Amino acid sequence: MHDIAALKTALEGLAIEDNPQIVRQKSRDFFWYSPVLKRQLEDVTADIVVSARSEADVIRVLKACYELDIPVTTRGAGTGNYGQAMPLSGGVVLSLAEMNQVLETGRGFVRAEAGAIMYAIDEAVRPTGQELRMHPSTYRTATIGGFIAGGSGGVGSINWGGLRDFGNIISLKVVTMEAEPRVLTLSGEDMHKVSHAYGTNGIITEVTVPLTSAYDWVDVLVGFDDFAGAARYADAIANQDGILTKEIAPIAAPLPHDYFLRHRKFLRSDQSVCALMVAPFAMDAFAAFTRRQKGAEVIYRSDLASAEESKGLPPVYELTWNHTTLRGLRVDPSITYLQVLYPFPDHVQKAVKLAEMFGDEVPGHLEFVRFDGKITCFGLPVVRYTTEERLNEIIRIHEDLGCPIFNPHRYTLEEGGMKQTDAVQLAFKGEADPKGLLNPGKMIAWENPDFDFSAEQTFLFPGLAR
Amino acid sequence: MHDIAALKTALEGLAIEDNPQIVRQKSRDFFWYSPVLKRQLEDVTADIVVSARSEADVIRVLKACYELDIPVTTRGAGTGNYGQAMPLSGGVVLSLAEMNQVLETGRGFVRAEAGAIMYAIDEAVRPTGQELRMHPSTYRTATIGGFIAGGSGGVGSINWGGLRDFGNIISLKVVTMEAEPRVLTLSGEDMHKVSHAYGTNGIITEVTVPLTSAYDWVDVLVGFDDFAGAARYADAIANQDGILTKEIAPIAAPLPHDYFLRHRKFLRSDQSVCALMVAPFAMDAFAAFTRRQKGAEVIYRSDLASAEESKGLPPVYELTWNHTTLRGLRVDPSITYLQVLYPFPDHVQKAVKLAEMFGDEVPGHLEFVRFDGKITCFGLPVVRYTTEERLNEIIRIHEDLGCPIFNPHRYTLEEGGMKQTDAVQLAFKGEADPKGLLNPGKMIAWENPDFDFSAEQTFLFPGLAR
Repeated sequence: MHDIAALKTALEGLAIEDNPQIVRQKSRDFFWYSPVLKRQLEDVTADIVVSARSEADVIRVLKACYELDIPVTTRGAGTGNYGQAMPLSGGVVLSLAEMNQVLETGRGFVRAEAGAIMYAIDEAVRPTGQELRMHPSTYRTATIGGFIAGGSGGVGSINWGGLRDFGNIISLKVVTMEAEPRVLTLSGEDMHKVSHAYGTNGIITEVTVPLTSAYDWVDVLVGFDDFAGAARYADAIANQDGILTKEIAPIAAPLPHDYFLRHRKFLRSDQSVCALMVAPFAMDAFAAFTRRQKGAEVIYRSDLASAEESKGLPPVYELTWNHTTLRGLRVDPSITYLQVLYPFPDHVQKAVKLAEMFGDEVPGHLEFVRFDGKITCFGLPVVRYTTEERLNEIIRIHEDLGCPIFNPHRYTLEEGGMKQTDAVQLAFKGEADPKGLLNPGKMIAWENPDFDFSAEQTFLFPGLAR
Repeated sequence: MHDIAALKTALEGLAIEDNPQIVRQKSRDFFWYSPVLKRQLEDVTADIVVSARSEADVIRVLKACYELDIPVTTRGAGTGNYGQAMPLSGGVVLSLAEMNQVLETGRGFVRAEAGAIMYAIDEAVRPTGQELRMHPSTYRTATIGGFIAGGSGGVGSINWGGLRDFGNIISLKVVTMEAEPRVLTLSGEDMHKVSHAYGTNGIITEVTVPLTSAYDWVDVLVGFDDFAGAARYADAIANQDGILTKEIAPIAAPLPHDYFLRHRKFLRSDQSVCALMVAPFAMDAFAAFTRRQKGAEVIYRSDLASAEESKGLPPVYELTWNHTTLRGLRVDPSITYLQVLYPFPDHVQKAVKLAEMFGDEVPGHLEFVRFDGKITCFGLPVVRYTTEERLNEIIRIHEDLGCPIFNPHRYTLEEGGMKQTDAVQLAFKGEADPKGLLNPGKMIAWENPDFDFSAEQTFLFPGLAR
């Protein structure tokens, strides 16, 4: 076992939590969205949680843990749902939540500590008329560092694509886990070394990301008699170059009525919905365009709703992306979900076909985005879960139709992503984490270089502490 | 002939110009880009020019001319090049150049008089961190009303598409030409009634258009050994969702070296160029992306150039769109040009094929834009003009390959555009200009409802005063 006593001595003066209840709580993220991860990771816990307040604290923790061979798993707000921030081999959870300062706001960019909450960053930069390009639905709780280390895109990706795209991160400060930790500044293509690497090859302590124009986005719900109508409408408005939106998500009946409890008063149970965020000055164009679309019925506009109608309603961004799933889980804990890419140009046709094929077993939920310059959509369909076998079968049917699954029922980078080794991330782990102590078990290429991704076997991390 | 004496009496107190030299000069736009229009329109002139200083002045002119059956052709800065602002039947040129006030700047929009120069609008809104979404290369001289009445897109269309798209104009104030002129405010789909109608069916006196984030755009030239390389690079970077650009234009050798005289010191005569405007905070991403592209050589970056290197250089937006042609005409008055749409997804392949097919007779010049949600390109190829027959043959070869020509050698709306009647514009002309006195000869559907667009005959306006 890890020599936690020696570590505590080495880290004296830092904020250390060792109450097992609290440590267990801080060792968990939203992995329980997946019944598979829930089973596998339910007992995962760190030995202690250390809260860093500065880069110097991070260096001290990494140096001490390196000496004592103790694993370090870094955590922002713990809002990921692939088990990204869960310490599979125990050791230290390093919380960056207290490193939350916005350091510099410029024309088109902001520099902030990794633990800054995205909503708070936007509050800080708002006086300049700017806001972040994109954020997850956990905008009000998630940290910018966690988003970059474990996210891929979200609200705003309809305009800017994903975090993987050149230009959506400007630079990162990263601390390595070596005898003498180094502080590196990565920019340009070097960013790919550590972005979306779950903190397996360096600790992101500071980020510089682009900003765009801030607006008082108007929340809109448009109702349709069927999911196909909602999906086609979403694609059509997403391809309108002059109508500025920030979010476009068609969601199949009966999910909106059943899960959006505060909005239920506006919704019929057989009504599919397209949820949007539209720039206020674009509302005339939005209305003119929507009037021409067959079967589209505007059922809610935050700019026209009375104070009474809007009272207590969550913002649209908290109805979309993984918040659709979250609201579903609150109503029906037996459901789960998938993450799908429907490739351009057949994205609508494929999404509709799959939704019709599975019916109410897999109700559709799409998120429109720019992807390699084209409008297409991801899916986060709800799955009425029965068995792991059936879940895997549903996944296979998607993949057979040419729709890749980013499997949220796997805790490794590769299985949740492109199902292949990321040579750049692997090589950088060799430099930045030679002992392999950073977030162990998440990078298959490091743990088992011979793992055969084509065999469709789930990777089981031998170091998983039970 | 028109009873100009009576009109002068009726308009007493307004700013009226009747010096024939000046009237002739103010009756011309950039029609002389086309040798065909030059021949047809060389002698076109109004009888007088009236400068309106207010909406009340516009109403007075339209009311008086209605009574006296005198045609009115409206003019901003006269920077169009389809003969849009030329008074084919004489009468009045109504100049709105003095109606140039910026009336209101809000979050995401600006309201201005039609005669406001686009560069001046951007100067006025810059303190709010905003700028216009798009402008022509004549940014420093062209008016916003003229752009909306006679333009289609330009610098910035890579992000926002064209003026025809919902959302790129918010509302317009329009004065009709009736016994009692009405002042209408058009928004939503009603905008299509008068936008890009050459002032044939109402006079735009005030515009509200969206704004976007303003940046100190970096001017960049990237060199390539051939035009195909420049075109492929342009398409690739245009499809990078995270790299914010405002302008992407590949231009074939030897045009950059031969026409961009101030930039010549950076250019080889056999070098094709991609000219770009890139957001300053995106330069790292731009550089990282460009390094990976085969054969791309960054030959000029305004952010890295010394003061001496940059001295006297025109901005990139004055190398692109119709300024490429303009610079060419200054060097070689015998050239002309075309306007082509290369439809997605074969745009690069078709543009390269046509450039190779014609060689130095039609050197390539592309402008990348968003069009119906996809990245594609327009072309403004230079044509080394010999005869009208050969020009028409070149046009036919483009169209046979599936690349529509927006023919800049025709002065009518239909022939310069979609080659079909715009029923909405025509119907609105019936309401707003019942006597057909607004910019006569420009809307074929009005002048000759039986004109057969499929017969490929040039429309000749019988009312053309010689």
